[in-house]
Amino acid sequence: MCNSSRPFSRLALWLSCLLAGGEHLVAATVSNGLMPQPAEIQAATGGRLAVAANFHLAVRGHDDARLRAALVRTLRSIEARTGLGFAHEPAGAYAWASDPTKAALVVECDGPALPVPALGEDESYTLTITPTQAILRAPTVVGAMRGCATLLQLLQSDGQGWFLPAATIRDRPRFPWRGLMIDVARHWQPIDVIERNLDGMALVKLNVLHLHLTDDQGFRIESKTFPRLHEAGSDGHYFTQAEMRAIIAYAADRGIRVVPEFDIPGHATSWVAAYPELASAPGPYVVERKWGVFDPVLDPTNPSVYVVLEGFLGEMAALFPDAYLHIGGDENNGVQWSANAGIQTFIREHGLKDNPGLHAWFNQHVHAILARHGKKLIGWDEILHPDLPAGSMVHSWRGPEGIAEATKLGFPAILSNGYYIDLCYPTRDHYLNDPAPADAPLTAAQRQLVLGGEATMWAEWVSPETIDSRIWPRTAAIAERLWSPANVRDVADMYRRLAIVSRRLEEAGLQHESYLPPALRRLAGDDATPADLQALRAFVDLLEPVKHYERGRHQPNFNQHSPLTGLVDCARPDSAAARAFASHVEAVVLGSSPTSLAEAAADFAEWHRLAGQLRAGLLQHSPRLAEAATVVASLDEATHVGDAALQSLASGRAPASDWLATQLAALDRAAVPHAAVEQPAIASIRLLAVAAAEQTKRASLPPDAWREHLQSLAQPAPPAPR
Amino acid sequence: MCNSSRPFSRLALWLSCLLAGGEHLVAATVSNGLMPQPAEIQAATGGRLAVAANFHLAVRGHDDARLRAALVRTLRSIEARTGLGFAHEPAGAYAWASDPTKAALVVECDGPALPVPALGEDESYTLTITPTQAILRAPTVVGAMRGCATLLQLLQSDGQGWFLPAATIRDRPRFPWRGLMIDVARHWQPIDVIERNLDGMALVKLNVLHLHLTDDQGFRIESKTFPRLHEAGSDGHYFTQAEMRAIIAYAADRGIRVVPEFDIPGHATSWVAAYPELASAPGPYVVERKWGVFDPVLDPTNPSVYVVLEGFLGEMAALFPDAYLHIGGDENNGVQWSANAGIQTFIREHGLKDNPGLHAWFNQHVHAILARHGKKLIGWDEILHPDLPAGSMVHSWRGPEGIAEATKLGFPAILSNGYYIDLCYPTRDHYLNDPAPADAPLTAAQRQLVLGGEATMWAEWVSPETIDSRIWPRTAAIAERLWSPANVRDVADMYRRLAIVSRRLEEAGLQHESYLPPALRRLAGDDATPADLQALRAFVDLLEPVKHYERGRHQPNFNQHSPLTGLVDCARPDSAAARAFASHVEAVVLGSSPTSLAEAAADFAEWHRLAGQLRAGLLQHSPRLAEAATVVASLDEATHVGDAALQSLASGRAPASDWLATQLAALDRAAVPHAAVEQPAIASIRLLAVAAAEQTKRASLPPDAWREHLQSLAQPAPPAPR
Repeated sequence: MCNSSRPFSRLALWLSCLLAGGEHLVAATVSNGLMPQPAEIQAATGGRLAVAANFHLAVRGHDDARLRAALVRTLRSIEARTGLGFAHEPAGAYAWASDPTKAALVVECDGPALPVPALGEDESYTLTITPTQAILRAPTVVGAMRGCATLLQLLQSDGQGWFLPAATIRDRPRFPWRGLMIDVARHWQPIDVIERNLDGMALVKLNVLHLHLTDDQGFRIESKTFPRLHEAGSDGHYFTQAEMRAIIAYAADRGIRVVPEFDIPGHATSWVAAYPELASAPGPYVVERKWGVFDPVLDPTNPSVYVVLEGFLGEMAALFPDAYLHIGGDENNGVQWSANAGIQTFIREHGLKDNPGLHAWFNQHVHAILARHGKKLIGWDEILHPDLPAGSMVHSWRGPEGIAEATKLGFPAILSNGYYIDLCYPTRDHYLNDPAPADAPLTAAQRQLVLGGEATMWAEWVSPETIDSRIWPRTAAIAERLWSPANVRDVADMYRRLAIVSRRLEEAGLQHESYLPPALRRLAGDDATPADLQALRAFVDLLEPVKHYERGRHQPNFNQHSPLTGLVDCARPDSAAARAFASHVEAVVLGSSPTSLAEAAADFAEWHRLAGQLRAGLLQHSPRLAEAATVVASLDEATHVGDAALQSLASGRAPASDWLATQLAALDRAAVPHAAVEQPAIASIRLLAVAAAEQTKRASLPPDAWREHLQSLAQPAPPAPR
Repeated sequence: MCNSSRPFSRLALWLSCLLAGGEHLVAATVSNGLMPQPAEIQAATGGRLAVAANFHLAVRGHDDARLRAALVRTLRSIEARTGLGFAHEPAGAYAWASDPTKAALVVECDGPALPVPALGEDESYTLTITPTQAILRAPTVVGAMRGCATLLQLLQSDGQGWFLPAATIRDRPRFPWRGLMIDVARHWQPIDVIERNLDGMALVKLNVLHLHLTDDQGFRIESKTFPRLHEAGSDGHYFTQAEMRAIIAYAADRGIRVVPEFDIPGHATSWVAAYPELASAPGPYVVERKWGVFDPVLDPTNPSVYVVLEGFLGEMAALFPDAYLHIGGDENNGVQWSANAGIQTFIREHGLKDNPGLHAWFNQHVHAILARHGKKLIGWDEILHPDLPAGSMVHSWRGPEGIAEATKLGFPAILSNGYYIDLCYPTRDHYLNDPAPADAPLTAAQRQLVLGGEATMWAEWVSPETIDSRIWPRTAAIAERLWSPANVRDVADMYRRLAIVSRRLEEAGLQHESYLPPALRRLAGDDATPADLQALRAFVDLLEPVKHYERGRHQPNFNQHSPLTGLVDCARPDSAAARAFASHVEAVVLGSSPTSLAEAAADFAEWHRLAGQLRAGLLQHSPRLAEAATVVASLDEATHVGDAALQSLASGRAPASDWLATQLAALDRAAVPHAAVEQPAIASIRLLAVAAAEQTKRASLPPDAWREHLQSLAQPAPPAPR
């Protein structure tokens, strides 16, 4: 379990950061590309340690193979980025400096990492960089790995070459459980996807890979005890146990835990496709191909269920070394239980009150099975019940109430509500979502039980080709929320650093950028000219996928085998182009300087040009882009409103009194999503239209009141609930 | 062995194609994206079979799981490209039409594929497409797979939607052995690289994956009998036997053989790193990290060598189902043998004459081992010796003489000379290189023994990131040479189709295009603007890696661990931009129309702009691009020569008499490769300069004589020997 001294040290850290708030400002240049932001940075003014081909490394103190592997990975990564070839011994190892005083980087660990990474393991480190040497000190090898991630982010160049800025960093995580969940059940994700995401996690100091291995749509782990499970439930797409051991080792090498999830008793169609007799209604069943909440649920009154669970979970407990095993437990809709007279009789006879009581009874038995195999239980909100055995952990997908209720009953908890990256919300929303915000109604004891959170990549709408673009770079901001002091909350600075860490993630092998050009070439077809492709790229960069669960409404016939190669799959969450435009609009409505007006006008001119190019080209001859015609028309229509608003602002003449209503109605029409994509720039154009209509009032209002006035009139459609 | 009736059918095919030469012309629109070109195409004028969401498929006649898997892959590939969602049954399979008369595509096979793909397997098929139905007929399931590859290449779209053009195609390969060799020893290539290349091979109908598994720099296959081999020789980077079985199954599913190579007795440093006692000189040895020909060689006089080979090759014979096992045999430099008195005594005592005699004696023993395990022997040219056992096959890396000598002695042979794709020569050179050209000094019997060829991807200078860009798309043209009738040799049409098949290869998962944008972002660094990146891309598109083995001279300190992320790794063989410029120059020197002059002038203006943008931007602040400064300067200098030549041609006034020599000297300087890259456009500028200087003679010479005159004066540096 969680190290009980940790919450105190977290509190101490929090206080020290509040007091040392100025340090973060001082360190602006040093933290140039750091994400997560370290707990403490002290920058030395202007000094730098050059990184050149003679860069040597020395290990002082504790030394082991895992440390060496981490250091070699770090050096190779520096070589790949810088093109420098560090000295290689004939045998292919690195030339370690025998005299640490001559090394550019000295690594000092007090001791090894735990053989298996575990919750509460000490991940702290200090990094001291002077113009002559960098010293990385850590109590454990895992701490040294976290320091290496910082080192990779500190490395930068200018005309003089590569260097590390002089600084002293003292760092440790705010929360001990910082995860990324990947659903490999709904859409299969092969090993290379998992491994490249582990590399990305290591770079931003995430430490838990939660694999959602079974669900209605797939059973993705080999069982030697009950092979029908993966045979009937995977279409041949599952991890063999040898492959899973390789993934676990790959993760452990990076100080990352692997927590497996086997979702029971609901989300269990793939279980009962293999063993229909375990269900709460007669089968047969086939693996589900569509999306939603389905009825099939294990029958807790059937003793065979516990025989299979004892065998299967015992097998998995031996395969997965982590202390925790996730049993899901969510979204059991109770339909099969309520319709089954025998089950209802069982509930009455055992005094279980209702279906949730039966669920709790089931969980007690599962808890006992896990305990026999040395595992702790973790599950989603729905497992919370007064009868939930102590020591179990609650994983909240429902929200802060889930955290509050679980910790009130004394259960440790982690948060995923607000970190549902599959729903395509902007980074800022996730970033400002705190597992234990200062104003939360939590006692000190409850706060100690909040252990962290996980970004959740549910896989209804992602393929191996697109999944990285739904995880990254946004998850780096979630990683910062979970690692950095709570007062690191500057959204603008987060976005600035996010653009930089996105490059580092790409260099680590993630494909959130590189998947796009081929996907656009496929959409555009063989006859597309370079100008067509440039216009398509610029247009798609302005789009975002629809949010929340809206995509299912747009593409109701899609299932597990439908191609994910359309316009929406090329659109990415949190459009940077739309954000840039929003900042231009902000400048216009606050100041209307000729420069800001010209910037916004240039945006509009470019969008008209794009629309013209697309209409004359790709929209004519690419059948893939037929669905884009309405979207292009909407952009063009909204841009015309923007043109008029800008002209009005530039002239200083407010439009006629009925103008605004007409324009907002036009923008309402333009903002209706088509082809499962949204145009976030339209919200900014609303603001511009309102500013034009209201411009006579600007002089009489202070800037904040003016901005508030505009926003209230612009009334963007309320965001869908998360 | 090779089906003995095959050469006759090849001859018949050749004749039919010569007679039917007109058909290829008629079929220009149908063959729009086909590579390799089929043996026979008859296009129906204008008809088309629409491909829409109601596309159904029926299997008539023979049916099996392998066929179904191939058809599902084909349908999924069509769905991914078109975005169409074909009907999926609830269980996730495809809805096959129960009534073949209603199906859009009917597949009729006479029988299954061989359980293990084998040399000489019937790969023929016919494909008949009418506006109402496509019918694919094949004697075997492998033939149906080849037909599916054609179908995928025929699929196209216009404003009306997706369709297959009406046509009748009768197709079969010219050669039965059409391979791609990948060296996984010098730079490790993991499974996903191998699998995506198998997908690319299937698309262009290659049927042999030759894996070069052992060499001085690595031992890349797990041996359970002698685990020290992969343990001491791989840095942990090797295929487990389970992984290799998965690769073999993946290949077999696509009708592709997997031929393993274990290079002996030379190229054996990784063998003797594990077992120094097997070498011909005392050890110890460590795995080699640099490139070249090295001394370590097995000792054929040591009985232990045969014990190890018997055990190891027996184990590999069981693992790899193909009839052939490649024993390498190349580049044994004889140094250790000559220096070893015992070995020289052995040669004398056994009447073996010399080192080659000993090598042949060794091969006889290896042949006997392989025969005991049911395998045929194949090796590189050097195994050819009068004592080579009958039934062995020669793989020629040395050239047409190798083919001639081997077949003269009655050995079957395949060609790789001229297909060394690692040497970065242009596609046209490989394309026109025929394993059995009409004018070769081969008897009819010898021609029957020429079974095909292999593109060879030697891996000194490729990483998993860059390897696709060195294999593709050029290897598609080699695939055409080996499959299509010998008279399919139109270079311009090959290049036109190559650009299309390159898209299909990308859609199949190859990264020859998509690796480049991230690699350029890495080179450019975090501060690069979009304009910087566009200029860098356009500049790099004009470059080619140095050819032949020149890169080793430019980067002499590089070894297995050096980063392959530099300018040269972003440059790709056979620059399309340089080819486009060459065609502009061709138009200028032949015609000097205002249009052609303007086109070339626009190229030059753009290059000056690029040079300016790069000088003002990236060359200032990216340390990675310091090495590009000389290359940019050379381009700019050569462009100035081009400017002057164009002005002279436009004005109709020949320059002063000493002008040309000065300009050619400037171009000589500019053409000197730096940073391991060449600028192929400079050869075209030479032609332009000569045309300017000689323009008074143009009127008096017919076009061909004029072109020849210019080319003789332009005297490009002779190409390095291949």
